[in-house]
Amino acid sequence: MRTNEKLHSLGEFGLIRQIQQQAGDAEHLVLGIGDDCAIQQQDSSQELLTSTDLLIEGVHFNRQWIGMEELGRKSVAVNVSDVAAMGGTPKSLFLAVACPAEISVAELEALIAGFLAETAAYGAILAGGDTCRSSGPLMISVTVQGTVPKGKAIRRSGARPGDNIYVSGCLGDSALALEMLQQGRLPDESLLKRHHTPKARVALGQFLSARQLASAMLDVSDGLLADLQHILDASGVGAEIELACLPLSEAFAGELKSAPQLIDLALAGGEDYELLFASSEQNLASTEGIELPLTRIGRICPERELTIRRADRSIYRCARGGYDHFA
Amino acid sequence: MRTNEKLHSLGEFGLIRQIQQQAGDAEHLVLGIGDDCAIQQQDSSQELLTSTDLLIEGVHFNRQWIGMEELGRKSVAVNVSDVAAMGGTPKSLFLAVACPAEISVAELEALIAGFLAETAAYGAILAGGDTCRSSGPLMISVTVQGTVPKGKAIRRSGARPGDNIYVSGCLGDSALALEMLQQGRLPDESLLKRHHTPKARVALGQFLSARQLASAMLDVSDGLLADLQHILDASGVGAEIELACLPLSEAFAGELKSAPQLIDLALAGGEDYELLFASSEQNLASTEGIELPLTRIGRICPERELTIRRADRSIYRCARGGYDHFA
Repeated sequence: MRTNEKLHSLGEFGLIRQIQQQAGDAEHLVLGIGDDCAIQQQDSSQELLTSTDLLIEGVHFNRQWIGMEELGRKSVAVNVSDVAAMGGTPKSLFLAVACPAEISVAELEALIAGFLAETAAYGAILAGGDTCRSSGPLMISVTVQGTVPKGKAIRRSGARPGDNIYVSGCLGDSALALEMLQQGRLPDESLLKRHHTPKARVALGQFLSARQLASAMLDVSDGLLADLQHILDASGVGAEIELACLPLSEAFAGELKSAPQLIDLALAGGEDYELLFASSEQNLASTEGIELPLTRIGRICPERELTIRRADRSIYRCARGGYDHFA
Repeated sequence: MRTNEKLHSLGEFGLIRQIQQQAGDAEHLVLGIGDDCAIQQQDSSQELLTSTDLLIEGVHFNRQWIGMEELGRKSVAVNVSDVAAMGGTPKSLFLAVACPAEISVAELEALIAGFLAETAAYGAILAGGDTCRSSGPLMISVTVQGTVPKGKAIRRSGARPGDNIYVSGCLGDSALALEMLQQGRLPDESLLKRHHTPKARVALGQFLSARQLASAMLDVSDGLLADLQHILDASGVGAEIELACLPLSEAFAGELKSAPQLIDLALAGGEDYELLFASSEQNLASTEGIELPLTRIGRICPERELTIRRADRSIYRCARGGYDHFA
């Protein structure tokens, strides 16, 4: 294994000091990076939301395709997306990085710069973490803490028969970009962006939570069908999805013309990080002040089945399974 | 790479369901494993402590030497130790595991059984996590959340000249066990236990915090000298350590007789997970109801130097550096 003299000479504590100086401050943060624990104020009127995510080189990302700054941004967005999916406000992030020897100080700094920029974009703060060398791939573990007014978190378990099913933004772009990269093709810039720098839908989640518009919600990370199935399982219901209603970007629709089987990427591709929710509202096409389209894609049914229907009402079967991280 | 059919067939969601059933419940936990985030109650009278740790195969542990159940226990203890080091009470843990294909379901179950047992031993709960396959080594990331009464957390920065320096338990056992394993020798059972299943000193930390007995504190993970240096840097002071005062176990003292240079393992070996603190108290040999010896090993000085003195007052120089995770 090559030794990275620069990373070695900067050292763990040099790196931590450097991050500490850049991490900034926040009202709720009593003590940030540099002690055994971060110390934060608590507010009894709010509930604490916590989620943790792993991003492993060779499993979740490939350094040939994604830049380190983008990787830092994506690590934040996919984690904050879990807070958005409950209608919460992200507050603090914790970053743990296991770094292989061939990563340079400049690369690590780019990763951290992206992480800090994306964290700030959500009004959150880097409050702590851990760093060490890796005996294998680059591994990133991120934990996010957020808050939500007591009792207002939107869970997966509240969907009721008759509810409409909505999704924000477009589906399939990220999976299409990945498929093209895997085939050695260069995806359209808009598709690449959706794959490398997804955005957590925080404002939309907060809007739906504050107005109690969603009976069940999550973010689409493993693919629409797999994630919808989580809502159905948790709620003890089924659903019917209308294939013709799936929201697709121009770039995706363009590729679909010559390859109709690509629709399965919108159904089961994963990494969309859009919000998927059930609602008793009939016409939720947009939300005040949030520039993100909402599309009604189906409805919740009492029978515990997930059916996809074509425009002619015939049943469509998706050839692709959802993403299983052990498969 | 061998494929683990059993892990593959159980699948990510099968595993999560299995863990969910074993994780139990706690009053502060509104919603645990199985949604986008865990939901927890907050208490304005308490501050929230958070720390995150990585344990990487080939860096922090070697599966030839440590069993999976012990590894699960150790993952909890080293993380909870950070909450103990501030005088807090551990409440919730989050476990993220990246699992290489050759790990069997039984091994993963043993890891989780150890993790849950050790979590329960501290009165805490497993509240969430993430699992995926690893393209390289086994990687474990743990995040702990604890609480401490507002303003009572013991930081690293409060040590003042004239304070005595105390350490709990014994030093060097864990590093000696590791050194013997690396040399192909089988360590004494008591040494092995200290290396594989360290205990977080939660009750001691709480005792010191509640009675405001410590001006600065941390847990010894990187080695006494390196960790003491963190207190000195944060507090803007120096220290004098008395070599003859270092608390050593019988097993360690036995090995030391024939190899006097081993004393450097007590000074700089790491992974002791004992509490190291400064205190204005003169005779803090024990604490009510806590069966853990405390030893005065030196004192805080105004000059910003860290000096080790032999019994004859001559200066001792440790040949070993502290543990740097990038070195």
